[in-house]
Amino acid sequence: MLKNIRSDIQFLKRHENALIYVKREDCIPFSFGGNKVRIGAELMSEAERAGCDHIISYGSEASNLNRVMAHMAENRGMGCTVIIKRDGKKEKSAHFNELILKNSRAHLVYCTRDSVRETVEAELSALTASGHKPYYVYGNSRGTGNEAVFLRAYGKAFLEIREYEKEKEMSFDHIFTASGTGMTQAGLIAGKISTGSGVEITGISVARQEEALKASILSALKSAGFGQAREDMVSVSDEYLCGGYGSYDSDIRSVVWELMTDHGIPSDPCYSAKGFAGMLRELERKGIEGNVLFIHTGGTPGFFDCISGGKGRHGF
Amino acid sequence: MLKNIRSDIQFLKRHENALIYVKREDCIPFSFGGNKVRIGAELMSEAERAGCDHIISYGSEASNLNRVMAHMAENRGMGCTVIIKRDGKKEKSAHFNELILKNSRAHLVYCTRDSVRETVEAELSALTASGHKPYYVYGNSRGTGNEAVFLRAYGKAFLEIREYEKEKEMSFDHIFTASGTGMTQAGLIAGKISTGSGVEITGISVARQEEALKASILSALKSAGFGQAREDMVSVSDEYLCGGYGSYDSDIRSVVWELMTDHGIPSDPCYSAKGFAGMLRELERKGIEGNVLFIHTGGTPGFFDCISGGKGRHGF
Repeated sequence: MLKNIRSDIQFLKRHENALIYVKREDCIPFSFGGNKVRIGAELMSEAERAGCDHIISYGSEASNLNRVMAHMAENRGMGCTVIIKRDGKKEKSAHFNELILKNSRAHLVYCTRDSVRETVEAELSALTASGHKPYYVYGNSRGTGNEAVFLRAYGKAFLEIREYEKEKEMSFDHIFTASGTGMTQAGLIAGKISTGSGVEITGISVARQEEALKASILSALKSAGFGQAREDMVSVSDEYLCGGYGSYDSDIRSVVWELMTDHGIPSDPCYSAKGFAGMLRELERKGIEGNVLFIHTGGTPGFFDCISGGKGRHGF
Repeated sequence: MLKNIRSDIQFLKRHENALIYVKREDCIPFSFGGNKVRIGAELMSEAERAGCDHIISYGSEASNLNRVMAHMAENRGMGCTVIIKRDGKKEKSAHFNELILKNSRAHLVYCTRDSVRETVEAELSALTASGHKPYYVYGNSRGTGNEAVFLRAYGKAFLEIREYEKEKEMSFDHIFTASGTGMTQAGLIAGKISTGSGVEITGISVARQEEALKASILSALKSAGFGQAREDMVSVSDEYLCGGYGSYDSDIRSVVWELMTDHGIPSDPCYSAKGFAGMLRELERKGIEGNVLFIHTGGTPGFFDCISGGKGRHGF
């Protein structure tokens, strides 16, 4: 499998008074890359260290983590169960990630928003009863306990950013990333704390209200051993939610096409393009100057969802 | 834009007595990577050196080169005209590459197989008449004259392979690649001649009969200044054509899914997966041993064409 995960940092363009660079996590060479490949690699190491033989993953129908865990488990010869949250009507999925999963060897289990915990517990019990040693990626059935593993991924990525700064004799003034559950941002903040860096880190929320996302990031940092983390270290904006998780509008769609056509960069409207669009507006609104790094968290299958007719709830 | 093009070499798996490695050209971080990004970068440098301000590209509806040239021209602030060969009925395109092109700023011109030359000439004349200095990627309107530029791309890639061998203190016994027009293979052979390497290089033809492909490769090598190239340096197999360009069967489709699910590698049935499938059979049939390198020439949009219902002419 993948050894020595790394990704390039590229200069993209000037926007107002900021020079925008992009860290191309989407080009990490395993399963379309992205932040979930870094996180997945940490989870696999942990599962192997614990002597587990079966991975249980969980996410939405569009989940990048589920796709990555199915492929990583298969690659290491481990079993994999993927729990997929499906709300509302059972319509035909419009997500390439789900189609790719259906063609993997992972066992797919569907649940609703209200039955996540019992579904995870049922799968853990059934696997244990049949002699397996399962590893649930989020820790216990309430989804806590694995924060340190998640944060390690972007703690390491932060060190790569520092190496780049040293090599190029420059420094970033501001880092932006799309924030869903906030684990990628929390990892970056962990890296900032560990290295004593002065860089600003802002998460563009793609799903949650500001307070909930901040609390989740702060709680993960504390669980992962960063007791010194304070609320003022966590900067989050929920002004670009655009109707919530998975929703997008014509502005975000324009960013998808601009990144592709002008810069050859695929992005997805659910995470990376929404985060990028939010960042552009923050740069304008706050007059942010200097070197700005955008963490491209991947989502190539979502790019193809988007261009093949996927519509956000706002329509366009 | 892209500087210092490089891609990783990964160990994939043992197959019979061969150890298969893959050069992940598909992860070169511009426009989904692939061999056409290397070639495109050489073409752009050449166009800029010649003081041209407009790129003319040509290819099929599924062309990766057309996509890459549109994005590269846009990125450098140059105009771009893309000529698309469309044979048969004008049905709705099933190719993501064409959809991506339609959303770029390139000017799209359609022609038939019989009208390529006159279409190229008409576009060159019209652009020149309106004060532009156009650059046609294939050289003159007959499609010759630019062989040296095309070959430079994989001559350089060959040097990267040599660096890997030196760093890892190993050497490859055999290199395989999908061969369409043969320019990638010709570039690798140019690299082999230049460095005096003893590696075997085999092209799995994805479109042409053996004799035609061999002649095309040999002719390109001679045009590019490799007068010492001999026919016995060009190894090609046309046994895995599977009905011709763009056609594929259930075996190739299985390879697409195996590479994705077991190894996290997207591939397309038109080039990379067809080449990989052909390579596996050559390894078996000829009992090839030792270190084998597969050049993954990209085609991620074709992966999504394939999984979203694209059917080869053989059906499955």
